[in-house]
Amino acid sequence: MTPADPPHVVVAPDSFKGSLSAAEVAAAVREGVLAAVPGARVTCLAMADGGEGTLDALVTSWGVDVHEVATCDAVGRPTSARWAVSPDGRTGVVELAEASGLPGVSDEPLQALHAHTRGTGELAAAVLDAGVVEVLVCLGGSASTDGGSGVLVGLGARLLDADGAPVPDGGEGLARVARLDLDGLHPRAREVRWRLAVDVTNPLVGELGAAAVFGPQKGASPGDVVFLDEALTRWAALLERETGVHVHDLPGAGAAGGVPAALVAVLGAEPEPGAALVAEAVGLPAAVADAALVVTGEGSFDSQSVRGKVADGVARVAAASPARPPVVVLAGQVLLPAEQTRAAGITAAFSIAPGPVALEDLLPRTAARLTDLAASVTRLALAQS
Amino acid sequence: MTPADPPHVVVAPDSFKGSLSAAEVAAAVREGVLAAVPGARVTCLAMADGGEGTLDALVTSWGVDVHEVATCDAVGRPTSARWAVSPDGRTGVVELAEASGLPGVSDEPLQALHAHTRGTGELAAAVLDAGVVEVLVCLGGSASTDGGSGVLVGLGARLLDADGAPVPDGGEGLARVARLDLDGLHPRAREVRWRLAVDVTNPLVGELGAAAVFGPQKGASPGDVVFLDEALTRWAALLERETGVHVHDLPGAGAAGGVPAALVAVLGAEPEPGAALVAEAVGLPAAVADAALVVTGEGSFDSQSVRGKVADGVARVAAASPARPPVVVLAGQVLLPAEQTRAAGITAAFSIAPGPVALEDLLPRTAARLTDLAASVTRLALAQS
Repeated sequence: MTPADPPHVVVAPDSFKGSLSAAEVAAAVREGVLAAVPGARVTCLAMADGGEGTLDALVTSWGVDVHEVATCDAVGRPTSARWAVSPDGRTGVVELAEASGLPGVSDEPLQALHAHTRGTGELAAAVLDAGVVEVLVCLGGSASTDGGSGVLVGLGARLLDADGAPVPDGGEGLARVARLDLDGLHPRAREVRWRLAVDVTNPLVGELGAAAVFGPQKGASPGDVVFLDEALTRWAALLERETGVHVHDLPGAGAAGGVPAALVAVLGAEPEPGAALVAEAVGLPAAVADAALVVTGEGSFDSQSVRGKVADGVARVAAASPARPPVVVLAGQVLLPAEQTRAAGITAAFSIAPGPVALEDLLPRTAARLTDLAASVTRLALAQS
Repeated sequence: MTPADPPHVVVAPDSFKGSLSAAEVAAAVREGVLAAVPGARVTCLAMADGGEGTLDALVTSWGVDVHEVATCDAVGRPTSARWAVSPDGRTGVVELAEASGLPGVSDEPLQALHAHTRGTGELAAAVLDAGVVEVLVCLGGSASTDGGSGVLVGLGARLLDADGAPVPDGGEGLARVARLDLDGLHPRAREVRWRLAVDVTNPLVGELGAAAVFGPQKGASPGDVVFLDEALTRWAALLERETGVHVHDLPGAGAAGGVPAALVAVLGAEPEPGAALVAEAVGLPAAVADAALVVTGEGSFDSQSVRGKVADGVARVAAASPARPPVVVLAGQVLLPAEQTRAAGITAAFSIAPGPVALEDLLPRTAARLTDLAASVTRLALAQS
């Protein structure tokens, strides 16, 4: 950058849950940046951590249309699910919660043993039909504990019992599965690169596994947890027999009811930290290469934020860039001490709270406060430039 | 500054009323600055706006001892009052509220007509005896509306009625005063430079005068206000007769019950914005000359803050310095929009609130939050240096 160039500010926030989408946060911050430095070049990239909202963030950052396909929800009822393709046509995006999410089945009692991810498999098949060479699967928010068997079924595989009959959908089917028939698998399923955005490191089975840790919030009783953990163990053994891949204790295999287990073993999928994956997908590394300042943000900036969430992903990208720009977090609340913030490669974190204030009074002022705070931060950060 | 020099950070805050003294605020900020840049050179200057707490701030910034003298309070009872002298022995400091303040007489019903500033005059006499060549009088917090007549009496003057008898202390005496006898005035009173730290621009008399605007909070009834305004008018006429100085509508003459009226007319005192006066007295202009960052602060940063309060005074000094360092306000609450903050020459203002929080939960964390916030601000401001 020569002195005559206007400073480049990259705005790459997560959504503020329950308040503003990532795109709305970015727009509010952008306004503040331009108020402080009217000539600044501002790049807005909606970010996400690979969980709920990631499809929206990618669609916004890419400026692409959303597609929709008929499929089934986590208990098999007809539903529709959205998907998208990157501007270059190479990367398709599937968000598990679209078809197989917990919110979609919140109208009836939770079915921990029966809930499945077949709808996501059908959704993925539509994406493969679009000709992509890479499928980004955003995990999180699942209603099921089926070890990803549903995704395979949705893509055309069959899970058969000892008699050669298909087993039921969901975790309950895994308890009886004896053979995996991949003959009907979508012809492109093993040609593309599968990338899994995960935000947990839990293994598939055991005390920290998918059933034990996440089963209860999907309606699993203590007995169901034992049943599901045994079913997932049986499933992992079968996958290892069929593919030679051992997924029992793969970090992250416990995400989304064990979806990575099947996709890693059968499709060669790679689990990756969601925020880093999204950062790459939206082009953050290229954007920060000449940035004078990077502003990110999220509703709550706490110890979780620096473990694979958006702020962490943004900080890592900025640290790896030649410009090494300062990274500032704007948040509804800042719970992480400055020392730990710095240790995570984040220059500073500021709350939008203007003083002692109640949450209900602050929420409607989120956008205005973001603009104001962004102006202050920009002035301070670019004062010397 | 060569690149090898450590950055110089000047910390010059006001007190956080009801929470921390200016020195405590400065210490907390200093800790954060050093956490961010361990090699930084940090200059702490306790600031004040010329009102209550100014003596404490000056004593802290100067590192001098406090002296104490026996005098009388605003209703004539024996009390003691503190004063101080600058390290070079040239400047004495008198805080009006020490002897003649409202808090000192809060144990009995307010006496709007009788309350006076004689104790402050006696205190000033002690300061003159110390050999100073300049007296800084901090106004504010007064219990009286006596046009500064008490200060003159305390310094040895006499106010006489038409029969040559001394009039009573306080505003009531002004209604009868016919002559001002300066024969007994302290011999040094007219040799020194008197500087009055004022934080209001009200005139002595009239609708915006000392009696009308500030009388009621000192216990004046509507009838008392009329009486006091007439008494001050009479006093101003007498001062003009005796000295040729017209003080009726002098901006700031209405401060502290009209104290500037007498001191301007008789002693040639100069009313000055308190924060600027204190800034000069503590050596802020020299301190900021090579500063990379200036941090100030106050409990509430609002529209008043940029009209003669500490933040405004600090910003003006920084703007006038060759380094033109960024000025950051750290505050309990930030009520001024970023645009107006910038217009006042302040780079940025941040609240110590870490998110939605109740005042009673935030107050005990003030020092810790100041340290944390100062660390973030320092990192951001000095990221490029």
